Amino acid sequence: MRLAVIQQANSADIAANQARSEQLIRAAAAEGAELIMLQELHNSLYFCQSEDVANFDLAETIPGPSTYWLGQLAKELNVVLVGSLFEKRTTGLYHNTAVVLEKDGTLAGCYRKMHIPDDPGFYEKFYFTPGDAQWNQGGSGFQPINTSVGRLGLLVCWDQWYPEAARLMALAGAEILLYPTAIGWDTTDTKAEQQRQLGAWIIAQRAHGVSNGLPVVVANRVGFEPSPLADAPGGGVDFWGHSFICGPQGEMLAHAAHQEETALVADIDLKRSEDVRRIWPYLRDRRVDAYGELTKRFID
Amino acid sequence: MRLAVIQQANSADIAANQARSEQLIRAAAAEGAELIMLQELHNSLYFCQSEDVANFDLAETIPGPSTYWLGQLAKELNVVLVGSLFEKRTTGLYHNTAVVLEKDGTLAGCYRKMHIPDDPGFYEKFYFTPGDAQWNQGGSGFQPINTSVGRLGLLVCWDQWYPEAARLMALAGAEILLYPTAIGWDTTDTKAEQQRQLGAWIIAQRAHGVSNGLPVVVANRVGFEPSPLADAPGGGVDFWGHSFICGPQGEMLAHAAHQEETALVADIDLKRSEDVRRIWPYLRDRRVDAYGELTKRFID
Repeated sequence: MRLAVIQQANSADIAANQARSEQLIRAAAAEGAELIMLQELHNSLYFCQSEDVANFDLAETIPGPSTYWLGQLAKELNVVLVGSLFEKRTTGLYHNTAVVLEKDGTLAGCYRKMHIPDDPGFYEKFYFTPGDAQWNQGGSGFQPINTSVGRLGLLVCWDQWYPEAARLMALAGAEILLYPTAIGWDTTDTKAEQQRQLGAWIIAQRAHGVSNGLPVVVANRVGFEPSPLADAPGGGVDFWGHSFICGPQGEMLAHAAHQEETALVADIDLKRSEDVRRIWPYLRDRRVDAYGELTKRFID
Repeated sequence: MRLAVIQQANSADIAANQARSEQLIRAAAAEGAELIMLQELHNSLYFCQSEDVANFDLAETIPGPSTYWLGQLAKELNVVLVGSLFEKRTTGLYHNTAVVLEKDGTLAGCYRKMHIPDDPGFYEKFYFTPGDAQWNQGGSGFQPINTSVGRLGLLVCWDQWYPEAARLMALAGAEILLYPTAIGWDTTDTKAEQQRQLGAWIIAQRAHGVSNGLPVVVANRVGFEPSPLADAPGGGVDFWGHSFICGPQGEMLAHAAHQEETALVADIDLKRSEDVRRIWPYLRDRRVDAYGELTKRFID
């Protein structure tokens, strides 16, 4: 199967961002991609650089205008599209939600980001309520989404640092792990620190592929976005791109550069997961009798 | 703190293997290492290439001759030593057990390998009973070992593929993750497959450092060891070396080559974990309310 991730630089002009997404989606579809994923919160600037109630105007319902737009596009191009939206669930209740549009334009499912970060420049806990613990509590939890191209283990950004999330998706039958992301550098950090952070981000996600014998697909934004805050370190965030697609041994299949807008395309073979899990049968040997304390905050 | 891992090639001559280990340990201590770790089952050849009851003669009690030897050496050199032994717990009950000897020569603790592999050339399920689930059930479980150089999250080889093991050690307060290992190539695999396997092994372990904000220390053996089985693919295992030490962002601090015997030395700063966990506070945001199904074999 051919798939693609869209890596783009955004501006404050939402219509222009969507037009650029659409252009890159069309390019990926023209190359034969059947599954195309956009970066996290692709409609807008990464607005979480400050805490501002006016930004709640950016949120929308699901289904809503963006799922309609993406659904129409998915249907026209006969592809499965993965988007990432600022969801208004009700007045005063918002989520960071990834959506999957099927080839016929219908909404195949959504995933509400479970792990919410909060650090200077990434004030997400102000905006997003974490997804509900269990699927049956409200359409969230670590629940893969069935599509015509496979069972998608869709997670979002900060989730990428949690092996628990990847494992639960794998245990629930995910065939691919997908991470729409918005991560970048504080430009006042040293180059060495920036490279350590980038390296950590890449190997942590590749390792989810290894641990679970699954391909991993990651879309990140590019470009410098200024902060509205006068005292923001470096004046904003330099999103580091480097979107990638790797196989079930964590092997790189395609890797975008920093600051390049692209529709990154690769071919994955879901049958390789069968082979890899035969030679490295990690699921066979999990010590489920000894994992109970994983549900503790700390063992003290 | 300066630490070292010993990477060596073994023969069927146990006394010669121990003499070589001792030589490399002395070299590491002379360079100022305070914590020195040997590879998995360092006394002997990797005997699990076949299932042979005669190999149970290689097992010994803990404490026993090898902990005495290592304890004397630890005391003489004033270092903490980590060894890996074939433990006879009682008649017909054996473990793959890592031991920690304190600077005064006493046994600080041991860890019985929890995840036991079994695949052609690595018939470990024949030899080793998995460690007990909980520390209080028999001196095992995912329980760090307190030493004068820090609280050691000691795991063994196949454990390295399980993020659950690393996480539980971190939650129990481990300050360093350590993996004595014996892993190598089937020489009949393609070079590309061999490199994918090596890459997966490196990133999976570096990622444990990233996910948990801890340094990771890995010792693997080198050299080709022939199989006693006539039909073994490639005639044996080519142990791939590549022992390494990385920091709490998964950054490489020292990395040995393939087929080189070495005492690999690096300096780690346990205070960096404090800094890294402040900028990337993963433990803050774990969804302990949503991880219950990690104790399931599969969610079906």
